Amino acid sequence: MAQYRVLIDSNDEKGLVYKISTIFFEFSLNILSNNEFVDKVNGKFFMRSVVDGDVNINDLRESLSKTLPNTTNIQVIEPKKKNIILMATKEMHALGDILIRHEAGELEANILAVISNYDELESLVRKFDIPYVAISHEGLERSEHEAKIIKCIDMYEDVDYIVLAKYMRILTPKFVQTYEDKIINIHHSFLPAFIGANPYKQAYDRGVKIIGATAHFVNNNLDEGPIISQEVIHVDHAFGWKDMQRSGRNVEKIVLSHALKLALEDRIFVYANKSVIF
Amino acid sequence: MAQYRVLIDSNDEKGLVYKISTIFFEFSLNILSNNEFVDKVNGKFFMRSVVDGDVNINDLRESLSKTLPNTTNIQVIEPKKKNIILMATKEMHALGDILIRHEAGELEANILAVISNYDELESLVRKFDIPYVAISHEGLERSEHEAKIIKCIDMYEDVDYIVLAKYMRILTPKFVQTYEDKIINIHHSFLPAFIGANPYKQAYDRGVKIIGATAHFVNNNLDEGPIISQEVIHVDHAFGWKDMQRSGRNVEKIVLSHALKLALEDRIFVYANKSVIF
Amino acid sequence: MAQYRVLIDSNDEKGLVYKISTIFFEFSLNILSNNEFVDKVNGKFFMRSVVDGDVNINDLRESLSKTLPNTTNIQVIEPKKKNIILMATKEMHALGDILIRHEAGELEANILAVISNYDELESLVRKFDIPYVAISHEGLERSEHEAKIIKCIDMYEDVDYIVLAKYMRILTPKFVQTYEDKIINIHHSFLPAFIGANPYKQAYDRGVKIIGATAHFVNNNLDEGPIISQEVIHVDHAFGWKDMQRSGRNVEKIVLSHALKLALEDRIFVYANKSVIF
Amino acid sequence: MAQYRVLIDSNDEKGLVYKISTIFFEFSLNILSNNEFVDKVNGKFFMRSVVDGDVNINDLRESLSKTLPNTTNIQVIEPKKKNIILMATKEMHALGDILIRHEAGELEANILAVISNYDELESLVRKFDIPYVAISHEGLERSEHEAKIIKCIDMYEDVDYIVLAKYMRILTPKFVQTYEDKIINIHHSFLPAFIGANPYKQAYDRGVKIIGATAHFVNNNLDEGPIISQEVIHVDHAFGWKDMQRSGRNVEKIVLSHALKLALEDRIFVYANKSVIF
Repeated sequence: MAQYRVLIDSNDEKGLVYKISTIFFEFSLNILSNNEFVDKVNGKFFMRSVVDGDVNINDLRESLSKTLPNTTNIQVIEPKKKNIILMATKEMHALGDILIRHEAGELEANILAVISNYDELESLVRKFDIPYVAISHEGLERSEHEAKIIKCIDMYEDVDYIVLAKYMRILTPKFVQTYEDKIINIHHSFLPAFIGANPYKQAYDRGVKIIGATAHFVNNNLDEGPIISQEVIHVDHAFGWKDMQRSGRNVEKIVLSHALKLALEDRIFVYANKSVIF
Repeated sequence: MAQYRVLIDSNDEKGLVYKISTIFFEFSLNILSNNEFVDKVNGKFFMRSVVDGDVNINDLRESLSKTLPNTTNIQVIEPKKKNIILMATKEMHALGDILIRHEAGELEANILAVISNYDELESLVRKFDIPYVAISHEGLERSEHEAKIIKCIDMYEDVDYIVLAKYMRILTPKFVQTYEDKIINIHHSFLPAFIGANPYKQAYDRGVKIIGATAHFVNNNLDEGPIISQEVIHVDHAFGWKDMQRSGRNVEKIVLSHALKLALEDRIFVYANKSVIF
Repeated sequence: MAQYRVLIDSNDEKGLVYKISTIFFEFSLNILSNNEFVDKVNGKFFMRSVVDGDVNINDLRESLSKTLPNTTNIQVIEPKKKNIILMATKEMHALGDILIRHEAGELEANILAVISNYDELESLVRKFDIPYVAISHEGLERSEHEAKIIKCIDMYEDVDYIVLAKYMRILTPKFVQTYEDKIINIHHSFLPAFIGANPYKQAYDRGVKIIGATAHFVNNNLDEGPIISQEVIHVDHAFGWKDMQRSGRNVEKIVLSHALKLALEDRIFVYANKSVIF
Repeated sequence: MAQYRVLIDSNDEKGLVYKISTIFFEFSLNILSNNEFVDKVNGKFFMRSVVDGDVNINDLRESLSKTLPNTTNIQVIEPKKKNIILMATKEMHALGDILIRHEAGELEANILAVISNYDELESLVRKFDIPYVAISHEGLERSEHEAKIIKCIDMYEDVDYIVLAKYMRILTPKFVQTYEDKIINIHHSFLPAFIGANPYKQAYDRGVKIIGATAHFVNNNLDEGPIISQEVIHVDHAFGWKDMQRSGRNVEKIVLSHALKLALEDRIFVYANKSVIF
């Protein structure tokens, strides 16, 4: 028997669970896990069910669609490895963490390539037999540089996610729109605190006692996309901003890898610039 | 329209969600929130739904019972204040936290009385116009002392929970059985570490870097009942055991009050000496 | 033998520890605990020593002053209860936490009075035999209202700290300057995120996964004074902003009480809009 | 000017700081950071100073020794890379984390070799051009197996630390004594909870709400050596023990790498089966 993830994102209305569970029952599906959330404020309903059974996936999809005519988004997904492209600059920790997890078989993902605007990480990436594409931004307009990156990405088919593992260049709206809802970034602060450049320096200057990191989808407004995951650590007066940076790396890599895992397992719904995580 | 909490605790079988949601649909109930958990290892199904609608509560109960003949436990609860008795010894923090929350209207509870084996807390409790019953254990066998406490408790009707807010005497199996599944305790360690007396001293002697507190239901084995909630804080070498105790109080009171809140809102299922928390 | 806290806040220069410890040695002082911090970036030196011995406190002060002629700030403090005034509005949790700690003898403080712009908390405060002064802001200019508060505060002598235990009115620069370095506030967000009104609503709208609270000294810029202490808790998509508010209260009260304790124990140095905490 | 770490571990007596700072002053040393701790209960004094200056290191050592004749342990250390040997079994996360940090230049360490009782990790380790020595335990008495490992370790000179990065075999007292105070282990629970085999299974069975990891020095009693660092994460009823294991890995690797960093930077004092961490 195969396992499926059923994701439903709908306007809320009475009887939704009844209708959906009726179909599961008719298809003789066994519910392995089930998560629902109703946002009463915005009248939205979200459900993620993991089911197993012996079904024709298209029939199931069609049946759900017919029964839920007003529902924006019904997905029936067979779990399989997703295709991801990593982007990085010079720092090794976030990229390295994903590479090790990939090597350990922890991620439901194929890493198609690592793209960087520098050469520094090539030696690391090559160790893992993953293509490394250095695309320098030097002497290029931002749009020219991104055009090269887009060209590179588009050589690969079916890219599910682009993961910015400390890629330190700001992306243009054009780039973001090209890969809408597909770009996951790690920002090295507890957003919305310290948007923009060098958040550790900002945190140090402000004298905070906690620093953090935020994984989020990227949209047009810098550091303002839907938040997926956040984590913090305590610091004190003895931390210079470089100490904060060093300690913060532990948080950054764990948060980014966690957010990636959630995405790969189809656990994230996005709406109203927020995420629902099951 | 009234609001109800529907709690179902059942052996797992195919179609449960379908059957339950069918009944909710037939009764025209609106699902405000819904949590399910299937323990595949033990073949157990748990559900807590908050619904609103205009129903006869007995009809709903009966209908659920008929449809789910194999289900051990079906509850349909109208939210109302539960009756609790607090027990304490000399320390003020956990008791005080509950008293303030009660005063602030945060707790769905009537505090019927505070029972202590000392006088120290009387002045505090009286401020809040709550009966304070000092039942000294001095010169008494444990069973005699508890008999007096039981006599006191049994003067009150419909006691839903007995909350041990740092009651520092060990309870006999007889006492525990008398109020089975009703006694909530705060243990001042991260269980199962440091069972028994003076856990902070034990933690200090062991040189741990984190201390904690555990709220749990009390069963016959000391400190071994189902855990409801746990929290920790970091300590370092500069903490003597009294410093740990002082800092630990912050955790103890928050954890106990949190566990009490979960109980009052009917969010806890207990099975296999564990808790499912919705 | 008496115990003293020696606080030294100085420009950094070679030999400071040598000079200070020489004096301690000459005065036959026993060092119970000693904390130092050198901020190399700003060339600042901070030290807090707890010593005991049999000394003339003025002699010790003078000796330190002579030996450290370039030092801005030398304090030799005999530990004793500090005088504090609490200000609140309607919420009970932060105020209640301080009242219970005070009642339990946990705070090195005399609570001189509670001032509020409403009546709601009077009943609680009266229970503890503490003066409650309601000074309504209704119909008054901000400056008129504050003038009344200042008049009330100034009836008390030797006020060491004014603790804003969820006092929900913005203070004018005049008020802040009147009690410079003496006002401790709890802001119900993880500063600098969500400055200003209703931070929980802001946090909800932004879709954060962590909320927090910040205790800080108040200076002229709203929510921008030196941070003393911060703590956070995790939230998820199921938290409406009122749920965040409810959960956040646990953090607020613990953080504020912690910051107050640090202040009462003379553990805080402030410089460059930051705090050094020993 | 060179930088030195001065570590002093002594019985407490009056005037220690005075005596030490006098010597620093005489040697014209600049104090970059200074940490002291006095354990009043056990009458112990610990100090770690980072100083810079232009000194003969032997003169400084001798001068300190003469001035502090009763002091057990005086170290003056020139910071340099320490030599470490890693031991692992099959799991990749803790080992991988150290390898990536080493590659990133984050660790003050030379990794001399990785020793494992299996082949599984060879491919990973070889990528980093680090010797991998598989020493199978199959068919061998424990003492025979360890004799082979000891022979391998002893081929390397000046081994400062042996890091057990999820090495899943119990070590004999003989092995432990051979490398006394040099073996750092990561135990996958919040010690002293869940000593011994499969702590995640134990934690699952107990129904805890928090799991953790503990880095500690290894002594003769399994999992009872001095704790260096601990961290925890929250879990809930939906976590099977394999889920706990998966999530726990994030904590294990961060805690072990952190403890290793502390050791490499000479920040740990051990006494009374505890650690003082500066």
